Amino acid sequence: MPPRDATVTSIGVVRSPYTVRDDTPLQSGLNSDVRAVVEVDPAYADALEGLDGFDYAWLLTWLDHEAHASPAMRQVPSFLQREGREIGLFAMRGPRRINPVGLSLVRVVEVAPPNLTFAGVDLLDGTVVIDIKPYVTAFDAPPSTPRCGWFDEVDLPASATRRSLRSDDDPAS
Amino acid sequence: MPPRDATVTSIGVVRSPYTVRDDTPLQSGLNSDVRAVVEVDPAYADALEGLDGFDYAWLLTWLDHEAHASPAMRQVPSFLQREGREIGLFAMRGPRRINPVGLSLVRVVEVAPPNLTFAGVDLLDGTVVIDIKPYVTAFDAPPSTPRCGWFDEVDLPASATRRSLRSDDDPAS
Repeated sequence: MPPRDATVTSIGVVRSPYTVRDDTPLQSGLNSDVRAVVEVDPAYADALEGLDGFDYAWLLTWLDHEAHASPAMRQVPSFLQREGREIGLFAMRGPRRINPVGLSLVRVVEVAPPNLTFAGVDLLDGTVVIDIKPYVTAFDAPPSTPRCGWFDEVDLPASATRRSLRSDDDPAS
Repeated sequence: MPPRDATVTSIGVVRSPYTVRDDTPLQSGLNSDVRAVVEVDPAYADALEGLDGFDYAWLLTWLDHEAHASPAMRQVPSFLQREGREIGLFAMRGPRRINPVGLSLVRVVEVAPPNLTFAGVDLLDGTVVIDIKPYVTAFDAPPSTPRCGWFDEVDLPASATRRSLRSDDDPAS
């Protein structure tokens, strides 16, 4: 019973300082000081009640500007462009996925319905939000420091973008 | 440009010991010893490559058995049934959401494509999976212990289910 006909609904839109994909930071955790806003659809504003008691939240986004009809099952992540190494799609965080759902941990700065101001931005201006969930340590934190595969072997520079990682690869560019 | 016509695709199905919704644990982190399997669609098996280097992964699921045409913007979470207290939908983790996407942190036990065996189960047998992402501490862990809103005030008993939390509420049942 796969939901081949299930549809996703926009619950709001991100207003961020980033309008060019290649210059947008790749992970919220690497760009934690910049702020942006989720403009929640006013029909859903009441759903924000109580979120101000949480320091962090998950933004689930729909990265349809990244959608491919058939994304490759192995891709070279931006962080591995230098090595050109391919990784399985379910072992990387890149946006060209079968379902282009983004998962961003953000710091809750202000909840003023229908707006949510947050810090930690890896999203283009105009990105569609499909869910907001509170961060709950009991559910979302592993009990000890986990192995993180190939990420344990690479630099994750602050505010890295696709463009900055390409520049590292080719100092002449 | 909301994706009102965007569709989600099943990438696999969960095979778990739980077949009754009210007896299914509410959060993977509260039921970390039980194991289950994601049977990934063989067409996507290569996407699992490299996941065995990670101790934890996120399962994003589509909880369409929970879907309501119009979920309430304030709901009483299972963990607050005793108090009967309502919380905004974006400040709780319950499954009756505008987009019924579940987010479960699970421990990677074995990657044997097309199957992924994991520990930490809060999913019904047959649940549709829409994405698998590796857990990356640099992206997914807040820099310090965060406030977690109303969750900081309630008990989160191991292996809690909807039924067990109802029983607490009404010892006669």
